[in-house]
Amino acid sequence: MSKFWSKVVHTLTPYIPGEQPKLNNLIKLNTNENPYGPSSKVINVIKQFSDDTLRLYPDPNSEALKKMIADYFKVNINNIFVGNGSDEVLAIAFQALLKHDRPILFPDITYSFYPAYCKLYEIDFKIIPLNESFEIALEGYLAPNGGVIFPNPNAPTGIPLPLNQIEKFLKKNNDSLLIVDEAYVDFGTESAVHLTQKYYNLLVTHSFSKSRALAGLRLGYAIGHQDLIEALIRVKDSFNSYPIDRLALVAGIESFKDDLYFKNICQKVIATKLKFVNELASLNFLVLPSGANFVFAKHLSKDGKLIVSELREHGIVVRRFDKPVRISSYIRFTIGSDDEMDTLLKTLKLILSA
Amino acid sequence: MSKFWSKVVHTLTPYIPGEQPKLNNLIKLNTNENPYGPSSKVINVIKQFSDDTLRLYPDPNSEALKKMIADYFKVNINNIFVGNGSDEVLAIAFQALLKHDRPILFPDITYSFYPAYCKLYEIDFKIIPLNESFEIALEGYLAPNGGVIFPNPNAPTGIPLPLNQIEKFLKKNNDSLLIVDEAYVDFGTESAVHLTQKYYNLLVTHSFSKSRALAGLRLGYAIGHQDLIEALIRVKDSFNSYPIDRLALVAGIESFKDDLYFKNICQKVIATKLKFVNELASLNFLVLPSGANFVFAKHLSKDGKLIVSELREHGIVVRRFDKPVRISSYIRFTIGSDDEMDTLLKTLKLILSA
Repeated sequence: MSKFWSKVVHTLTPYIPGEQPKLNNLIKLNTNENPYGPSSKVINVIKQFSDDTLRLYPDPNSEALKKMIADYFKVNINNIFVGNGSDEVLAIAFQALLKHDRPILFPDITYSFYPAYCKLYEIDFKIIPLNESFEIALEGYLAPNGGVIFPNPNAPTGIPLPLNQIEKFLKKNNDSLLIVDEAYVDFGTESAVHLTQKYYNLLVTHSFSKSRALAGLRLGYAIGHQDLIEALIRVKDSFNSYPIDRLALVAGIESFKDDLYFKNICQKVIATKLKFVNELASLNFLVLPSGANFVFAKHLSKDGKLIVSELREHGIVVRRFDKPVRISSYIRFTIGSDDEMDTLLKTLKLILSA
Repeated sequence: MSKFWSKVVHTLTPYIPGEQPKLNNLIKLNTNENPYGPSSKVINVIKQFSDDTLRLYPDPNSEALKKMIADYFKVNINNIFVGNGSDEVLAIAFQALLKHDRPILFPDITYSFYPAYCKLYEIDFKIIPLNESFEIALEGYLAPNGGVIFPNPNAPTGIPLPLNQIEKFLKKNNDSLLIVDEAYVDFGTESAVHLTQKYYNLLVTHSFSKSRALAGLRLGYAIGHQDLIEALIRVKDSFNSYPIDRLALVAGIESFKDDLYFKNICQKVIATKLKFVNELASLNFLVLPSGANFVFAKHLSKDGKLIVSELREHGIVVRRFDKPVRISSYIRFTIGSDDEMDTLLKTLKLILSA
């Protein structure tokens, strides 16, 4: 602490990301990374552009990347905002679009960065509990509000919300903004992107970190009405003119170009997940339905905390959340490769039979 | 404009970066990039790490890079903060350390991002005019304040402030923070980094974009007392856990390792500058003393705006600022390669003799 700190710094409770272990021989199923690397075409384009031109600033407006994303989703380039990871995109959206007199609303069990953003930008918020099946129940979000945000599928539950429920909500809640954080959407959840063309009160955010296997490169984007995008751009241009580096720009474009590879690895992860969910159920786990590249499950007899620490002793890292209490016995398993999930299942059998 | 905008968005006047022209055959001397590329070792390490591991998140704390920078400057790792360009580092510093009841102070002629940050974070500020020689006169900064920030050398004047003046000021102004923005320090200005070990009210920021020839990669850092760094980390961890990507991390480390290359290109730019300054003076330009990789000069008879537009017609891009009026006739010339400066000088002679 120091007298030089701005007042807000004293009040912050920063987000704590999942561990990035320093050991190399671990099976890492704790931060929802893709078990498959990015497309070789993406790797090649990064190498190709690693040259003397790195001395030059990138395009501050990332136009070529925005154009690529816009074309892919059949929207206008003015509907696209790109940032240094979807965390940055979300942070800017909180500051640019969610600070109003009324509190914003989000679920009690959700991405734990949301309350951190609220504290950083001094945004009032109210949490709305998930229902007893751990689902987002949108009736609870109809109170007057300064905005609504939730992930779809939700994290860490993985449960997807049907698109017709979201559309119904957009019609009713037309006086404030809805942000749907679709970081995990490509693993079996319907995307709301096309609804942004119909509802000017909807912003959808996506990440390159999960389905596009580029967590190491930091890229994310938002899609919405151009008035919403303009607010994000105004904040970005008052914060950092060049958030996206030259290599991320070309890699991001190439990732969208190699759509076959992208769809293929998503399908592989989904297939592995379906198999894993069945096996997990047969080991006496209660498994929540997942539209993501992870599953959230609790064992019906053995304590989750104990399972997590025993898995760690066997070199497997998964994630558990202490709070809120009603999820503290759940474990979040990232879907890795088939081999990794086989090892995980074998180890779980061993632990559970001990 | 939209009813969904947060109030602050309406008040923003975003920073406008220098043009990144789309044409390839231009001589680009407008955004202070390095004419020399990064070290080949930096390029190689980027290529080497462009592989499947890009699917994994980077180290959220950038420890290896911070350790490298700390060792280089003989400070502790707790004295280092890294960010996605020194613009991001500065933005976070404004939010974390400069929002107080009293206004912060900075020069009237300086990096024009400072007022943009102030508007974004709703920080009250007061501008202190440079003296008649365009120098920062620190007597003017002794009024009670919420913090002081200036670049050294200043931009766009390029004029360096002697270190003993800064140290004297730190002693007198010990109740508020001083941020010295040393983006251009490696081109002939004394750095205040070592003073951070003695004065807990000093934060120094550096960029990889100019002297380290990595503008395209987005890296910057701050050095200061660990209490100051902690404030920056708290804000960063409430904003974006992983601002630095995997490739920027290894490239940044390699850039510090290849110190010989770094010092060599700095020396080359300085030598080119000295030659250019003399030639410019002989063409009837008034040239301000420069500790940077650019010079700020005005022609004694021909209008600066006209010179800039005629240079552009000849394929040479330089930068001029409309405001404040007393610098509107000045031109900022980035120091390029010897060849580029020769072409510039020839073209200037042509234009001036017409």
